[in-house]
Amino acid sequence: MQYPPHLIKLIETLKQLPGVGTRSAERFAFHLLSTNKEQLEAMGQIIAQIPEKIHCCPICGVFQDEKGCLFCQDPLRDKENICIVARAKDAFAVEKTGEFKGVYHVLGTLLSPMQGIGPEKLNLQKLIHRIKDNGAKEAVLALDSTLEGDATALYLRKELTLLGLKLSRLAFGMPIGSSFDFVDGGTLAKAFSGRGPF
Amino acid sequence: MQYPPHLIKLIETLKQLPGVGTRSAERFAFHLLSTNKEQLEAMGQIIAQIPEKIHCCPICGVFQDEKGCLFCQDPLRDKENICIVARAKDAFAVEKTGEFKGVYHVLGTLLSPMQGIGPEKLNLQKLIHRIKDNGAKEAVLALDSTLEGDATALYLRKELTLLGLKLSRLAFGMPIGSSFDFVDGGTLAKAFSGRGPF
Repeated sequence: MQYPPHLIKLIETLKQLPGVGTRSAERFAFHLLSTNKEQLEAMGQIIAQIPEKIHCCPICGVFQDEKGCLFCQDPLRDKENICIVARAKDAFAVEKTGEFKGVYHVLGTLLSPMQGIGPEKLNLQKLIHRIKDNGAKEAVLALDSTLEGDATALYLRKELTLLGLKLSRLAFGMPIGSSFDFVDGGTLAKAFSGRGPF
Repeated sequence: MQYPPHLIKLIETLKQLPGVGTRSAERFAFHLLSTNKEQLEAMGQIIAQIPEKIHCCPICGVFQDEKGCLFCQDPLRDKENICIVARAKDAFAVEKTGEFKGVYHVLGTLLSPMQGIGPEKLNLQKLIHRIKDNGAKEAVLALDSTLEGDATALYLRKELTLLGLKLSRLAFGMPIGSSFDFVDGGTLAKAFSGRGPF
């Protein structure tokens, strides 16, 4: 005996969300079944309207709303300082730290020879133009500390040093609040070699 | 700096799902942002259409589709055997066991004096009518093994024994695949007192 067809369709749809398996999708679905009509219609509309309501800025690649890019159009932000991220959402993670007052540039992806993602997939030409046009003085590489992030950082170093700007990358080290018991050897080695005066 | 308004709305909407906090909602939202227009429209429609596509059977209270109730309208199911569950989804959990070929009855809730849920909230009068009309011979209480489940089971026993049908409740004991290390004292006591010949 199976669920009604629409319920099956709903569960399959919810399973498309990242990290959601059959059991979670069922739990979500049964919750939605006990939600009132107005809320369901609002939720459905919010999801369906994503493409028309949220766009990426043609300059930096971060999401923008109807009023334009939150970063590129802000006169208070330092256009000579560019933070390079792989995905638009990473810009907001950097933003939350409160450490950065420049502008962003979204690469769109990280290099991954294993998955066939080469340099031509990076949103790089636009970045080079921006650096030249803005007279950018610094670029911060805010990339994952993974193999793909390392490969991308090395590639960008090769491409961007010719432009004569200061290039930096996020520090590696122990995460805040971590005990030695739970820090892996690679992280500890990076933290040790990068130790600072205290 | 904040997300665009529609993205905030999307995240707040996704946070309504059970067990989904801000971080999961953000992860879901960013996944949806990279999903294509057609899929988003389909997803939105599936959610908005829940109230018109999925209804509860007026007899047993389990979800039914356009063709009617999967259980009540099935001539092969034994109408004299009624499994009593708290929520419609519990019927499908029982169904998956493959142990039951009767019909279901959804109470709608469990008694909970703490939350002000008294016997008047149970879908009970309809159950009594069904038992009389169907000449039901057995009722299985498939209720949670919680305080609320116990209170509901005791109340139903008082109400239903007068009707002269065989009343049973799901067995209590060790979950399958469990080790003594992880079984709590209450469960072990129930498993011990309910031990069977081997």
